[in-house]
Amino acid sequence: MIQSIRILGIDPGLRLTGFGVIEKIGEKLIYIASGTIKTASGKTENREELPARLKIILDGLFEVIETYQPQEVAIEKVFVNVNPQSTLLLGQARGAAISAAVMKDLTVAEYTALQVKQAVVGNGHAAKEQVQEMVKRLLNLPAVPKPDSADALACAICHAHGGQGLGKLATAGFRVKGGRLI
Amino acid sequence: MIQSIRILGIDPGLRLTGFGVIEKIGEKLIYIASGTIKTASGKTENREELPARLKIILDGLFEVIETYQPQEVAIEKVFVNVNPQSTLLLGQARGAAISAAVMKDLTVAEYTALQVKQAVVGNGHAAKEQVQEMVKRLLNLPAVPKPDSADALACAICHAHGGQGLGKLATAGFRVKGGRLI
Repeated sequence: MIQSIRILGIDPGLRLTGFGVIEKIGEKLIYIASGTIKTASGKTENREELPARLKIILDGLFEVIETYQPQEVAIEKVFVNVNPQSTLLLGQARGAAISAAVMKDLTVAEYTALQVKQAVVGNGHAAKEQVQEMVKRLLNLPAVPKPDSADALACAICHAHGGQGLGKLATAGFRVKGGRLI
Repeated sequence: MIQSIRILGIDPGLRLTGFGVIEKIGEKLIYIASGTIKTASGKTENREELPARLKIILDGLFEVIETYQPQEVAIEKVFVNVNPQSTLLLGQARGAAISAAVMKDLTVAEYTALQVKQAVVGNGHAAKEQVQEMVKRLLNLPAVPKPDSADALACAICHAHGGQGLGKLATAGFRVKGGRLI
């Protein structure tokens, strides 16, 4: 019997929260959906107050969960910013994202960016473009996903492989050297 | 016709989240309830993972909202800690607390500690003990509330008075000088 599990990856942010849903069937990874939840336009004067913005994140993730019915959630551990105020805002966005998941009784696993990059590219310090490219290849996408979606999908992929490195990935057909595809 | 409004004040924290419910009837403030939601025992080894701890905050606040049916929520704007990791954790706890409120479709007002102290004690730099003492007097409590409950109640009181200073408070019978009761 082939086991399958549907995973929602989240890359939290106050302005942009990326999400990506994949399904792991046996050792195969299938792309289901991805996108971003935007809480503000670029214009500062139009920015909503924090509670309203957190509600947009919550409602957006509820819709994603409702639509794609993931069984597990993987979320990036955000790094601490040099600007403490930004760190606080990011923390609140992440708190809302985790809240959406736990309120739907989904288990939430946390991975550092290093773990995610290690799992997807095989190099914890890979560039954003390498992550995007690897996500495209691993999920057999027609084009490179946008950075926020790519990070969310990468987080889901990392979870699919138990947070393990590239060795556990379904990398058949890819040649990897020093964390780069060749 | 006397207007009445029930306000939930929240003092968010990852380990301890204080809550306080008051009712404003005309210019009178009535104490309804207060307490703390604890997400961890003192023992580090027993501490739950972050998502589980945020769920405890969410469930605790849902229970408070369900039980006391507040119409509005006032929450303290947390200050940025010197330790970025603590700032991030606090931000996530605050994000979960705001999530609980907005998910119940309650409006959320935010006040800085300075605004809260200014409104309750008349001095933005008042000591914790002064806040506790003033909350006891303003709400006619039999004893001084614990710090976390007191801060949450103070935040609700601040909101009841439109975030205004002591001038707007129902301070009849109190003499205040330099932010201190005399």
